[in-house]
Amino acid sequence: MKAVDIIAKKRDGGELSKEEIEFFIRGYTRGDIPDYQAAAWAMAVYLRGMSHRETIDLTLAMVHSGEILDLHEAAPFVVDKHSTGGVGDKTTIMVAPLVAACGLPVGKMSGRGLGFSGGTLDKLESIRGYKVPLSIEEFLTQLRDHGVVVAGQTADLAPADGKLYALRDVTATVASLPLIASSVMSKKIASGADAIVLDVKVGKGAFMQTIEDAIALARIMVEVGQGVGRQVRAVISDMNQPLGRAVGNALETAEAMEALRGRGPADFVEHCLIVAEQMLILGGKAEDTTTARRILTEALESGRAWDKFVEWVTAQGGDPAVLTDPPDLPRARLIETVPAPRSGYIAGLDARQVGLTAVLLGAGRTKKGDTIDLAVGVVLAAKVGDFVEQGQPLLTIHANDERLLPEARERLLAAYTWSETPVQSPPLVYQIVP
Amino acid sequence: MKAVDIIAKKRDGGELSKEEIEFFIRGYTRGDIPDYQAAAWAMAVYLRGMSHRETIDLTLAMVHSGEILDLHEAAPFVVDKHSTGGVGDKTTIMVAPLVAACGLPVGKMSGRGLGFSGGTLDKLESIRGYKVPLSIEEFLTQLRDHGVVVAGQTADLAPADGKLYALRDVTATVASLPLIASSVMSKKIASGADAIVLDVKVGKGAFMQTIEDAIALARIMVEVGQGVGRQVRAVISDMNQPLGRAVGNALETAEAMEALRGRGPADFVEHCLIVAEQMLILGGKAEDTTTARRILTEALESGRAWDKFVEWVTAQGGDPAVLTDPPDLPRARLIETVPAPRSGYIAGLDARQVGLTAVLLGAGRTKKGDTIDLAVGVVLAAKVGDFVEQGQPLLTIHANDERLLPEARERLLAAYTWSETPVQSPPLVYQIVP
Repeated sequence: MKAVDIIAKKRDGGELSKEEIEFFIRGYTRGDIPDYQAAAWAMAVYLRGMSHRETIDLTLAMVHSGEILDLHEAAPFVVDKHSTGGVGDKTTIMVAPLVAACGLPVGKMSGRGLGFSGGTLDKLESIRGYKVPLSIEEFLTQLRDHGVVVAGQTADLAPADGKLYALRDVTATVASLPLIASSVMSKKIASGADAIVLDVKVGKGAFMQTIEDAIALARIMVEVGQGVGRQVRAVISDMNQPLGRAVGNALETAEAMEALRGRGPADFVEHCLIVAEQMLILGGKAEDTTTARRILTEALESGRAWDKFVEWVTAQGGDPAVLTDPPDLPRARLIETVPAPRSGYIAGLDARQVGLTAVLLGAGRTKKGDTIDLAVGVVLAAKVGDFVEQGQPLLTIHANDERLLPEARERLLAAYTWSETPVQSPPLVYQIVP
Repeated sequence: MKAVDIIAKKRDGGELSKEEIEFFIRGYTRGDIPDYQAAAWAMAVYLRGMSHRETIDLTLAMVHSGEILDLHEAAPFVVDKHSTGGVGDKTTIMVAPLVAACGLPVGKMSGRGLGFSGGTLDKLESIRGYKVPLSIEEFLTQLRDHGVVVAGQTADLAPADGKLYALRDVTATVASLPLIASSVMSKKIASGADAIVLDVKVGKGAFMQTIEDAIALARIMVEVGQGVGRQVRAVISDMNQPLGRAVGNALETAEAMEALRGRGPADFVEHCLIVAEQMLILGGKAEDTTTARRILTEALESGRAWDKFVEWVTAQGGDPAVLTDPPDLPRARLIETVPAPRSGYIAGLDARQVGLTAVLLGAGRTKKGDTIDLAVGVVLAAKVGDFVEQGQPLLTIHANDERLLPEARERLLAAYTWSETPVQSPPLVYQIVP
């Protein structure tokens, strides 16, 4: 078998056999197949696609490129969640302790932000002392003792994916359905959870631009997971406008903490409850969403969710002294409120533009390894469907460099579209798969 | 400008600007853009194509990646020829001295064989002492003093093409019309000839499989050359069966020498005369093919073409003692004649299979840098349209390893298709462009 023949077969639209996919992924992981051949192959996959069978085989080949965690020594049944990435998406920070507070262990390996899309690990690091890199030993201990752990991906799990993802990032081959599906699912399967709820974002601030694409991605990911005996469900959720009000690491962590105290923005809290409901159902804690919702509301209102958050974060190294009300998180030097330039209903609020502006302010990375400023970002005072009077606060910019303020202001204002007549706020969730 | 954005634009079927193409080729030549980005870009170009304008800009960017030769200090007007590659194609060895013998200087940089396709430099090296690598100084001196030079490509000319070609070879991106056209024409333009005759092969033993593709390739190459003030014509010629009878380096050189002495196979000689006619017309030595044919025939029959061959080869280091009749070229140890397995008309003789069998015997390379055996190959006793009696000689295998004989025999016999009824031999040339 030769790498160049496998590339040529995919280039011509052929369906690769399980053996060919395994040969290619094994060779690439070992370094026998160089980056340039993998890059040509990835572009051929991007443009020619992959069948469901190929995608499943690719995922499994990546799973088997490294270790597969067994979490059962820590807990009999563990749930995980994964978001395909968006703007203002601090869901994990609320959902992980909330679900754990309902008696269902949550074990999650998460990622960092890249481009307009934020990352949970960066957000958690705004809590002083929070330890993101855990050994497998530490991961299991935290899960066993506290029922909730959120850590960085270890290099031992699905190393083929780590290598391929870095390559896709610089070869314009990220937004490919089979490559995204296999990337997500190889990591999720290798990290050992029994059940996985996928939060597939769709819209301006997501990789998937249409509901059809999002459903297609969700279906193949669910099928892949079920194919190896995992329970998987996907929530197709809106990412045309940012989720919640805060965009930026410490700002988002603060918002999630507010929500755990029962004071979060309605859209964000509702989104978290929908995701958490599916986790409880998969974990056997509730038979339907009504029951699940009752259990979750009780955990929130009783303060048990907040208590679990404090337990989790402090056990994972976070300084309890920062968990005050309001919390003592990194704060930006410049806080500028931008007034509404006109009166009207907000018809659109482009999540990608808001995300890119946060990156401009220093909250995110243009390329892997860039240092970020945990304090900066944007807080939206009004969202789609809201009526705003001219001169009322529209948003607040949190910055540490005044030279960036004019461009940030201009780009944020350009992210809004307006209407004279009332506008319905968009649905939070379009569908649950399957 | 960022390489990844240029890749993404081509991936999505966009037309790259002149600036984007120059940025990419300059960056790749310098090493600022790595192989893996060039590989993804090449696959995107392969699958999305390029407009004529893009192909011309790509060619010029590759021309300007290195030096451009000025041959006018050696001769006032120089012609060149280029074949897109085939099996049994020893045209240059006959045509270069033939045209030079008519008073038109021929300056050519040539290539080595790869895969089923042979290379002129390998064939010439079967003449003991023939010096393939010439400095630019030596190239010009030989051209000035003898009116004919055939040497290896120097690294200083179109280095972007050298780098990109090696990459395309291992990333399944060779057979792309804009990439082939820009590769050929960047080298031809940089090597300085005033007029270029392209021999575009089509059929089983060529890169181009259909006449339409071959004409499309020829048109864009002619347009690119004319765009920078060169005179260019393309001969679209058949490569379904091998050209002439000999396939293999020394065997082909011997056949070309036979032809220069007036004893070559009819199809090969006729093909050479058609190509040479176009060279004489572009070089202003003849107004039409009838006149050109008369001049060429006179040069052949008078022995001036043979004398020019001897002058050229010996001036370029070849040992005159090997130019005996028959010539003293490397000879294989085993010569096996294969009889016809049946009586009938030969309906087909798959050039690619014959070429691959020659590679199997050691005449060619599976990958760049492989060593080759100059002596081995195949000589065909009968070609398409010929009638052969069962048991008559069909072909001769020249080998140095008896273990390879059974497979070579089997594959060569499988390359033939037969007919009970008379079969017309295929045309040599389909069209001349423009």
